[in-house]
Amino acid sequence: MKNFMEPESVALIGISRKSGSGSFNYMENMIKFGFSGRIFPINPKAKEILGRKAYPNIRAVKEKIDLAVISTPREDTVSILKDCVAANAKAVIVVNQGFADADSRGRQMQREMTEIAKRDGIRILGPNTLGVLNNFNNFTTSFMPLSKERAPVGLICQSGIFFVGARVFSGKIGKGIDLGNACDIGFYEALEYLGEDPDIKIIVIHMEGLSKGKEFVSLASKVVKEKPIIILKTGSSETGARAAMSHTGSMAGNYQVYKAALKRAGVTFLEEEGQMTYAVKTLLNLPTMKGNSVAVITFSGAAGIMGSDALERHSLKLSTLSSETIHMMAELSPDWMPLANPLDIWPAVMVHGTHKAYSVALKAVLNDPNVDGVICIAIAPMIPESSFLDVSEPLNRVMQEAPPKPVIAWLYGPNQREISKRFESKKRIMIYPTLEMAAWSLSLLRERRERI
Amino acid sequence: MKNFMEPESVALIGISRKSGSGSFNYMENMIKFGFSGRIFPINPKAKEILGRKAYPNIRAVKEKIDLAVISTPREDTVSILKDCVAANAKAVIVVNQGFADADSRGRQMQREMTEIAKRDGIRILGPNTLGVLNNFNNFTTSFMPLSKERAPVGLICQSGIFFVGARVFSGKIGKGIDLGNACDIGFYEALEYLGEDPDIKIIVIHMEGLSKGKEFVSLASKVVKEKPIIILKTGSSETGARAAMSHTGSMAGNYQVYKAALKRAGVTFLEEEGQMTYAVKTLLNLPTMKGNSVAVITFSGAAGIMGSDALERHSLKLSTLSSETIHMMAELSPDWMPLANPLDIWPAVMVHGTHKAYSVALKAVLNDPNVDGVICIAIAPMIPESSFLDVSEPLNRVMQEAPPKPVIAWLYGPNQREISKRFESKKRIMIYPTLEMAAWSLSLLRERRERI
Repeated sequence: MKNFMEPESVALIGISRKSGSGSFNYMENMIKFGFSGRIFPINPKAKEILGRKAYPNIRAVKEKIDLAVISTPREDTVSILKDCVAANAKAVIVVNQGFADADSRGRQMQREMTEIAKRDGIRILGPNTLGVLNNFNNFTTSFMPLSKERAPVGLICQSGIFFVGARVFSGKIGKGIDLGNACDIGFYEALEYLGEDPDIKIIVIHMEGLSKGKEFVSLASKVVKEKPIIILKTGSSETGARAAMSHTGSMAGNYQVYKAALKRAGVTFLEEEGQMTYAVKTLLNLPTMKGNSVAVITFSGAAGIMGSDALERHSLKLSTLSSETIHMMAELSPDWMPLANPLDIWPAVMVHGTHKAYSVALKAVLNDPNVDGVICIAIAPMIPESSFLDVSEPLNRVMQEAPPKPVIAWLYGPNQREISKRFESKKRIMIYPTLEMAAWSLSLLRERRERI
Repeated sequence: MKNFMEPESVALIGISRKSGSGSFNYMENMIKFGFSGRIFPINPKAKEILGRKAYPNIRAVKEKIDLAVISTPREDTVSILKDCVAANAKAVIVVNQGFADADSRGRQMQREMTEIAKRDGIRILGPNTLGVLNNFNNFTTSFMPLSKERAPVGLICQSGIFFVGARVFSGKIGKGIDLGNACDIGFYEALEYLGEDPDIKIIVIHMEGLSKGKEFVSLASKVVKEKPIIILKTGSSETGARAAMSHTGSMAGNYQVYKAALKRAGVTFLEEEGQMTYAVKTLLNLPTMKGNSVAVITFSGAAGIMGSDALERHSLKLSTLSSETIHMMAELSPDWMPLANPLDIWPAVMVHGTHKAYSVALKAVLNDPNVDGVICIAIAPMIPESSFLDVSEPLNRVMQEAPPKPVIAWLYGPNQREISKRFESKKRIMIYPTLEMAAWSLSLLRERRERI
């Protein structure tokens, strides 16, 4: 994988002379992205492309080539691949589609590519891929502009949609590998690379089909001890599986068996793509959870009930709060107030203000031995008009001396975006858009602690 | 309910002389909101409040009083309620908490209130409520500022959290009734009012406990024929039920039996509060769905697969597209392109551009007799830089002549908010944040058609 992710020299075969907006020129994108290695554009009709000398074919380069990127009509791919072997290129990315994702002719050509890889030792990523992204050395083969963030998050996927718009699905991505149809390089090789990569702390995977399943399970079971692994398997429905067959030519195979083994080993599986960004945020930033007892702090009785419902849906339960915790809150609350979990602190807020009531409550439950994790239901007011309702700063202060228990917040009010940022700025309290998602996220932290 | 929602004169008992930011003065809020009726502030320590003559008690008013609002310490409530009877007030809202939501003393006082309502014919909303909101006549008793929008959406709830931050849960609310502990006015009376209200087209309900269940079921079964009814029942978990008991003093009762009957009648039940805003959007704006066959239009194979998975999770299926539909798309696509449902139009986009490819595809599937509804996976690009990728305008044009089938879109890209607004401006295509939510929303439209 090193030749794909950290090449010193790349040949770009079939690169267009057109550049600028709407041209999808990946050489232009590569230069803009800050790649500092050598680039050899290959185009028989050009002498020069974007200021670099162009070559009629890869054999004419006659220099060390770590990586070749092919984006030509599908009919030319196999013969160009043979040229790459002849030119001693070590690795090849085949960008274009029309192979196992298409018709029988395409499937045949893909088989030929696999055979070339096996026979000649050249490694192939794709076809039907955007290639790679490495924000730690400013390298990408994507023809779409990507975000540039050195996040400790590694992505392995079978579609550019996870790659280009990573933020839509998974938040910031530091390194990414789009396997496409995976004719040679597969999940095993990609996971091996990211698993050993010290820049990467968490690995997120979009999977349509899995080959080398046994080896992958064994490798993932090792990697997951060090780094959380999150898998979104798509095409799990009958119709989805048929569609996956025609998308990347993937077969479901013994997937159910592999999935069971991976789950036992502690790999996190997602139900749907909307969960990905929250799974990454959770497992990257929050401590795992020792038991399944959760305290809910709320300013609204109704929201506390919704939080309780959500916990039960995810096999978690409300902690029985210790008498110390109850006592501390009772001192702030009116006599008639029944105090339990969920801890309704509104009456305390009315007398002592949000800052004091929330701080005392959070500190109390974090130090309560019966509490393994916390859902805090807080307010997202407009600021500065209603700054007194924003408790992000006092709660982050409480976290400074808190035992390592996960604290998750759900915000209610008109200013979600700004108040979320304030909460998350210290990376101790994470915000979720629904109580359902909040409870689910805690269940991931519980699961990881149980398995690992 | 008319005295609560459309009063001509209100007495505000226990109103504070403090006003301005942070004072939670509901008289101030009421005036700002534009209420044009008479207001009698009741406060023995004041001569005048906010420019209106104050009275020492309600009996001293000696004028017609449609509605009295009580916000005093709980100990005073019952005797003040008796004063309201003596003053011939027709309806009372009891704002403060500390009744069935609190201790045995509170439960006893609430029972006394119920008895007064029965015996003396005065109607009571609450206790433990923000009261009412009627945007169609600028009236509210809330001490929190509320949004002012004449949306055809009626809300019945048992917590101010749905009321004040309606947008967090349900989108815009035209009229709202917070039942609180529901010592007298309950779901039956509120539904009766909103059911007959010509301003209201859809009714959304947050329910902790249900009394008069039989009557409610019978009424809801009638109302739902005309107006969709959406219910979020909370406290459905064991722990949640216990919490609900202490929140509004609600009992679960024969809820499961009522729920089954309501579902049969076509009432929509939610799993969690995060679904509420999308259920309202869906049932308010989109036509119902005749069968369970859905076409998925996508620019990404992977996203199409995710859409298929989501459909299957919600008991919907991919339509078998007619040969006319396939033919129309084949004319735009390369020869090797396998065309089926999901309809992957990226190759067509590459040759013919987004506007043409998407328009032809949407028109074709809408006119396809095998298609009952559509999920359209589109792009949310930055504009104006990449306006050519924004298909909101051409697709809304296609909708002008389309048969009444629901079209739901999921957007991929960095500019969700702006492009969503463009799509939804014509109220024909609705946008959902995940494919899961998109498929679920279609299932609501299918369910409504099946039942009603």
